[in-house]
Amino acid sequence: MSRPGAAPVPVPRLRSFVVSLLSALGLPEQHAQDTATALIDADLAGRSTHGVRLLPPYAARLRDGAIATAPRLRVLSRTGAVSVLDGGNGLGQVVAAWAVRHSVEVARELGAAVTTVRRSNHLGALGSFTRAAAEQGMVCFLVQNTRANMAPAGGRQAAVGNNPFSFAVPARGFPVVLDLSCSAVARSNIDLAAERGEPIPEGWALDPDGHPTTDPRLGLLGAVLPFAGHKGSGLAVVMGALAGALSGAAFGAAVPPLSDYSRERDLGHFLLVVDVAALGDPEELIGRVDGYVGEIGGSAPAPGVDRVRVPGEAADVRRRALLAEGIVVPAGLAAALRALADELGVPAGALD
Amino acid sequence: MSRPGAAPVPVPRLRSFVVSLLSALGLPEQHAQDTATALIDADLAGRSTHGVRLLPPYAARLRDGAIATAPRLRVLSRTGAVSVLDGGNGLGQVVAAWAVRHSVEVARELGAAVTTVRRSNHLGALGSFTRAAAEQGMVCFLVQNTRANMAPAGGRQAAVGNNPFSFAVPARGFPVVLDLSCSAVARSNIDLAAERGEPIPEGWALDPDGHPTTDPRLGLLGAVLPFAGHKGSGLAVVMGALAGALSGAAFGAAVPPLSDYSRERDLGHFLLVVDVAALGDPEELIGRVDGYVGEIGGSAPAPGVDRVRVPGEAADVRRRALLAEGIVVPAGLAAALRALADELGVPAGALD
Repeated sequence: MSRPGAAPVPVPRLRSFVVSLLSALGLPEQHAQDTATALIDADLAGRSTHGVRLLPPYAARLRDGAIATAPRLRVLSRTGAVSVLDGGNGLGQVVAAWAVRHSVEVARELGAAVTTVRRSNHLGALGSFTRAAAEQGMVCFLVQNTRANMAPAGGRQAAVGNNPFSFAVPARGFPVVLDLSCSAVARSNIDLAAERGEPIPEGWALDPDGHPTTDPRLGLLGAVLPFAGHKGSGLAVVMGALAGALSGAAFGAAVPPLSDYSRERDLGHFLLVVDVAALGDPEELIGRVDGYVGEIGGSAPAPGVDRVRVPGEAADVRRRALLAEGIVVPAGLAAALRALADELGVPAGALD
Repeated sequence: MSRPGAAPVPVPRLRSFVVSLLSALGLPEQHAQDTATALIDADLAGRSTHGVRLLPPYAARLRDGAIATAPRLRVLSRTGAVSVLDGGNGLGQVVAAWAVRHSVEVARELGAAVTTVRRSNHLGALGSFTRAAAEQGMVCFLVQNTRANMAPAGGRQAAVGNNPFSFAVPARGFPVVLDLSCSAVARSNIDLAAERGEPIPEGWALDPDGHPTTDPRLGLLGAVLPFAGHKGSGLAVVMGALAGALSGAAFGAAVPPLSDYSRERDLGHFLLVVDVAALGDPEELIGRVDGYVGEIGGSAPAPGVDRVRVPGEAADVRRRALLAEGIVVPAGLAAALRALADELGVPAGALD
């Protein structure tokens, strides 16, 4: 999100502004806070496609009723460590933050929690939620299903979601946080190339006829491709089974495209939270994780690489820097946010 | 395992022979049964590198005491849904079968079980164990850590294990079973190329100096490479944290190589089992999984592909065929098994 000339906005200031916008859109206080936290955390982690850039399209969906502003969040069932939740068609960030809080409580009681969620929406950067759990001493695994947008291995048609997932493991310095989708690249990279009018490398997508393409617009109409062939494809199938078929949410072709505002999307999540304290002495175990990632991070780098980074490290470095320096909001986004703030009667001084 | 001329051995006959061999080596009845089941299942699934071919090297390790023939299997702690197990340095197949049984019991009680295991050994094909759980109506996720044999993304030195993992999800026809290691190919493929004196493709391994190599012998001395760069590398880091650092087992460089018989290997496992019945009506949910995989399997295949296969499908087809036709034991392996049987006084008529 950097653009020469624009002044960085201090994070607390940007956060207050985002909370005010979301409150003005009708979100209850806690929901506005949770959404602001998730969006800004995505920017801090360098995942700006899932950051405050999402506010204008989210505002449009909240205002036309495609997403519920004050969703009824319900625990449909609780069987020991397993909970089935209904997100009431709220913003994915709201539903996921609630689901993580619920699961952390269950895990504190029973050592572990498995939670499925239906009637949710796109939740942005999954790593924000798993990291939050890891910072409370929890191992966390979170999956979100998506519309069938990817050709499975051996296929030529979008028939499986690229179903992103994230793992986080507590450590002393920063949590290990892995955040992947099962496609060769996140779909947002193809969106970005289409916006910029740039070609995409072969191996990212098929056109609507099932042929490899370097045209991002055709790729968006066709299917993205899995990473590592049958490995990424197989992971996508499993993640969709967990977050879609087994959660009671919509799955596959039944998930409406993002551009279809007429129907609820009914996305699903699958969540595992494990309290490290149930696995042994947490100090000792977290020390072991530190030793483990230290061994990897301290190993000999490849030519031209300064050091081997473990998952979550680059985002942590970036997060620390931006928390000190502020976040640069690009001019186009700032203009869109100002227009939205004007309509809602929210002061936009944070962006000046 | 096919070789022209050799007659296939009916599976029940081969199984009895393997149980007899293992019993003669000192394994208690249940342990011999579990190991035979796992080895033969690997052959049935087309993973012959983890099949009965392992009996001669396992016999060597059991006889010189490097692996315990009658391990003491202990539940070190149980905190709600979370168990910490000690495999007593038994065969990985013995320890894993026990850990799955334990976890299925906990999941029947509490909906889900998270189990870590230390003091185990190589457990062969992970899919055999996750599939067994899926056939009891359980979602199963199993990880095994390995010695640091892979260069992480950005690295040139073996510093992370290729830490295989498996997911299985119950379905009506056959369970969805994904069984992956985090390297571009399973290390056993490089072993096989070395045995055959064939070169390996670039992208599989680095030589001991950290340069790409096509020589399988140099690759085995150096490091294997992750699939899909930072994605496979990141998954390996996480899987090693779950199965190694958090289980209390050895991890990274502390895991002795397979060729070192002087020390216990102390491998670790991480296991998640979720009872589908805790997620909702199991008939309905399993029907949804069937619908989901049916949508994927029924999608348009790529040119030259007959149909899109979902994870576990190819192994299921093969398993059904071999259960009917029998397993062909290659001549070299049959000779090694006969020699072992002779030493142990076990009749080897099954191989005739």
